[in-house]
Amino acid sequence: MSTKRTKAMKMSALYAPTLKEDPAEAELASHRLLLRAGMIRKQAAGLYSYLPLAWRSLKKIEDIVRDEMDAAGAQELLMPMVVDGALWHESGRWNAYGPELMRMKDRHDREFVLGPTHEETITDLVKNELRSYKQLPVNLYQIQDKFRDEMRPRFGLMRGREFIMKDGYSFSATQESLQEIYDDMKDAYARICERCGLKALPVVADSGQIGGDTSVEFMALADAGEASLVYCDDCGFAADDEAASTKVAVTEGPGDGTLEKVLTPGMGTIEAVADFFGFPQNGTRKSLALIAEDGTKVVAIVPGDHELNECKAEKIFGEYHMMSEEELVEAGLFKGFIGPVNLPQGIRLVVDESLRESRSWACGANEVDYHFIGACPDRDFTVDEWADLITVREGDPCPHCGRPLKGARGIEVSQVFQLGTKYSEAMGATFADENGEEKPFIMGCYGVGVSRTLAAVVEQHNDEHGIIWPVSIAPYEVSIVPLDPKLDECAAACDAISSALCDAGIEVVVDDRDERPGVKFADNDLMGFPYQIVIGKRGLKNGTVELKDRATGDRVDVAIDEVASKVAQMVVDAR
Amino acid sequence: MSTKRTKAMKMSALYAPTLKEDPAEAELASHRLLLRAGMIRKQAAGLYSYLPLAWRSLKKIEDIVRDEMDAAGAQELLMPMVVDGALWHESGRWNAYGPELMRMKDRHDREFVLGPTHEETITDLVKNELRSYKQLPVNLYQIQDKFRDEMRPRFGLMRGREFIMKDGYSFSATQESLQEIYDDMKDAYARICERCGLKALPVVADSGQIGGDTSVEFMALADAGEASLVYCDDCGFAADDEAASTKVAVTEGPGDGTLEKVLTPGMGTIEAVADFFGFPQNGTRKSLALIAEDGTKVVAIVPGDHELNECKAEKIFGEYHMMSEEELVEAGLFKGFIGPVNLPQGIRLVVDESLRESRSWACGANEVDYHFIGACPDRDFTVDEWADLITVREGDPCPHCGRPLKGARGIEVSQVFQLGTKYSEAMGATFADENGEEKPFIMGCYGVGVSRTLAAVVEQHNDEHGIIWPVSIAPYEVSIVPLDPKLDECAAACDAISSALCDAGIEVVVDDRDERPGVKFADNDLMGFPYQIVIGKRGLKNGTVELKDRATGDRVDVAIDEVASKVAQMVVDAR
Repeated sequence: MSTKRTKAMKMSALYAPTLKEDPAEAELASHRLLLRAGMIRKQAAGLYSYLPLAWRSLKKIEDIVRDEMDAAGAQELLMPMVVDGALWHESGRWNAYGPELMRMKDRHDREFVLGPTHEETITDLVKNELRSYKQLPVNLYQIQDKFRDEMRPRFGLMRGREFIMKDGYSFSATQESLQEIYDDMKDAYARICERCGLKALPVVADSGQIGGDTSVEFMALADAGEASLVYCDDCGFAADDEAASTKVAVTEGPGDGTLEKVLTPGMGTIEAVADFFGFPQNGTRKSLALIAEDGTKVVAIVPGDHELNECKAEKIFGEYHMMSEEELVEAGLFKGFIGPVNLPQGIRLVVDESLRESRSWACGANEVDYHFIGACPDRDFTVDEWADLITVREGDPCPHCGRPLKGARGIEVSQVFQLGTKYSEAMGATFADENGEEKPFIMGCYGVGVSRTLAAVVEQHNDEHGIIWPVSIAPYEVSIVPLDPKLDECAAACDAISSALCDAGIEVVVDDRDERPGVKFADNDLMGFPYQIVIGKRGLKNGTVELKDRATGDRVDVAIDEVASKVAQMVVDAR
Repeated sequence: MSTKRTKAMKMSALYAPTLKEDPAEAELASHRLLLRAGMIRKQAAGLYSYLPLAWRSLKKIEDIVRDEMDAAGAQELLMPMVVDGALWHESGRWNAYGPELMRMKDRHDREFVLGPTHEETITDLVKNELRSYKQLPVNLYQIQDKFRDEMRPRFGLMRGREFIMKDGYSFSATQESLQEIYDDMKDAYARICERCGLKALPVVADSGQIGGDTSVEFMALADAGEASLVYCDDCGFAADDEAASTKVAVTEGPGDGTLEKVLTPGMGTIEAVADFFGFPQNGTRKSLALIAEDGTKVVAIVPGDHELNECKAEKIFGEYHMMSEEELVEAGLFKGFIGPVNLPQGIRLVVDESLRESRSWACGANEVDYHFIGACPDRDFTVDEWADLITVREGDPCPHCGRPLKGARGIEVSQVFQLGTKYSEAMGATFADENGEEKPFIMGCYGVGVSRTLAAVVEQHNDEHGIIWPVSIAPYEVSIVPLDPKLDECAAACDAISSALCDAGIEVVVDDRDERPGVKFADNDLMGFPYQIVIGKRGLKNGTVELKDRATGDRVDVAIDEVASKVAQMVVDAR
């Protein structure tokens, strides 16, 4: 009874209303092109309909995700999108989660949420049914529409309120088991990106106590990305520049190493001081005065060409703030001339690790219009604490291999995360271990932004003419463009090629519209079909059609009776 | 790069927690068996998680729906589940829809709903993009989780609050075009039921003005069904017994046709009167006194063995009610002895169509303890109106072919509906016709209850041991049950058969658990895998395994090296 029917789609019937003009609201390429190509439409702020072309691509992404998850031993299920509020109270997230959480009440006044993730639901699901370590590990996932009530939804699919996500959760008896699944998921996620045609980097978001990572974000490289990254082409290291550590190479300052006070009138910036000494900014030292959460006055010193990293500073100082003019006066400090030597009493000196070996610093003299050169730690001043303080920049050495890091922007498309026992403890989800003791599940969670992946692919694969779909997730793999569909000869060639491709299992759209060639070329390029077969009068005379590769722009004439098998082979190779 | 990996699932790893006992809350077979087989779990009232086995079956149902929709020229898309309240205000449904509609507000206090259906969203989607009759018709569908806040969710997946639905909508320029799509959808829906293994009837829910139907519900026959149906095995007619019309054959009453008053002391029921005359109930006439919405007093008469149909009565009398004791007295009527002859002034007499030709009625005499026999319309009384008043019963003649109707209960699994211009007019969704005039789209809508179909299949396909999946939607097509998985010979046979089946593209689960044979047999039957290959010691000696057909219970011994190809062929034939 089952008959998978494959036939070519006719463009004249396809619901894909293209736009001639760039939509005003679309800043990003993906937003603009998906709208223009008739692939998505906005229903309300952050709520998009996926029209047939986009939906075909999304289903392919979903299938790639499924294939990789299943191969890695995960099992698919589907939980309700509407989640009992009681579960969120149990986990503590009802109160902890901000207004992004869509809360609501049913007709009986019972609280529910639209699940942005499903840790609570799945923990509740397994908690009385996985009872023994013998049943573990279990790795479950679903692909589902999620909702987050973003304050300012924008960028089309990139930051919508409703979006498609694969969320997976694992339950283990031991940390080793979690680590194994986590590593498998990392590998699977790398393959998912690759199979979707995404150049993405696994970025260590957080380091575990035992050295390994406990959370990795897969970042698709794109100028439109929200995250700023550094990465190493040589060893594969990649990190958010906020989180990365590096041992920056620092230049020694000017002078012969003797402490010397120099008049630097009005030179209250690194730039001015470096210029004055004719020295790279890296050879100067930047001193920042701040007040830690506990009230301690702090001077933090970093290489002159680097910035104090806010995240790292918060880890050390808590909710600190930079000293105001009044606080500087009160502390006995002079803006633009702060330094480690002759620091007033009661100020804690914290210095970036990269300066540990440097013995000759150019730095403020704690006196208006003066700097020191040749200042040396231990000899001229005492450092209270060495710490990792700076934001890593392009060109800094890779912390793994020392080669210069590259900078890039990235779109977070997926993340693997070791949850540990956060939810299982809160919700009393336990299993009996080998000794019969009740222990909380050790959990991991693994998310893929499915609709976000679609947008990220468009960000990476487009040109001035439109989208350039990778074959693996193209809505149709081949478009056939008969320029004179009413001409018998043209129609016959079109039918023959189309049938042969469909028989070979290739997904084909035929641009049968009564439009000028220019309109057809533009739309096929805009929609980004990877291979386009153009049937024109001139070629027909010679028994050929033109085969265009959307990605390279290459066009070659191919014999009509050879083109289908040739293209089919290209598609199969590229899938 | 694409590699669809097929390997056998191990039962030891499968997340399918079975229950030994029947869950107390489950009244229906589908609810009970899906819970027991570890296929669904309740999260909150009317909210179910589909565990891996159920989810596999659901995806197969979805794929069958997709296949039939695509073949019929419909295109799949996906709209947001969260719908802008403004659209619902525009259509008027914000106020018209009851508390089943989940309403909510976002962080900016804007109104939204969880769409139970998507007429508004899709009408809004196409309204400024389908502009000309040349672009029509368009038929779009989606498969999505829907939410209806049922007052009393129950029966598991049968009446949940969140459920999976295929909802489709068509836009036409003409009624003929709508009719064509509607008919195609009807055909597709019949095939969907058939391919899912459902015995279902297309029930005419409403008749159009021009004779044809404008709404059909596909009813899966099952004792657990909410709807009461009549159908004809001969001509295929089927209808909700509330909606069906029939020309009931009526028996003439006792007597020689002369009007005669008979003393019937205390015989105020049809049963008593029929007994008294020694006549079938069908030969008596039942008179009912009611007050119509506009205050008119009415006596309605139906054959003695039929009931007044409330729906039909409402269409004629509006919001009527049966007369109270006081109202009867006031009208001069006597309960149990009402009839058409000598009716008091000011009472309207409305009689069922089936009695038009009957010339000799046994009926109340409008006098306590008296009945008439031989009462004849026109001669003895005047009928104000002939109307279709009765609820059709099993055994009544089919309105099409006259053969006796059968009665059954049914589960509504899908529906096709001609919407007309209700939404397009309300929302100003128009296109330019051939003369350039703006006309509202003529719409149809087409729904399939996907999760409900799963439950309906289980209602139809189960026995005392569990579920009996049709091959087309079985979670796995074949289970292999090695009784001694640790025995080398047994394991080797299991691997060989499993590999051969997987290579043939068959979906296999291997019950590798360290459990007693009885437990394995029970679970495999409960989960309902269509073909089960049992590998036991005794068979191994002879080089055979036992092949069990779950549906028939048949068991045959098959040679180990033949079983895979044999079963693969059976599966392919049955898919």
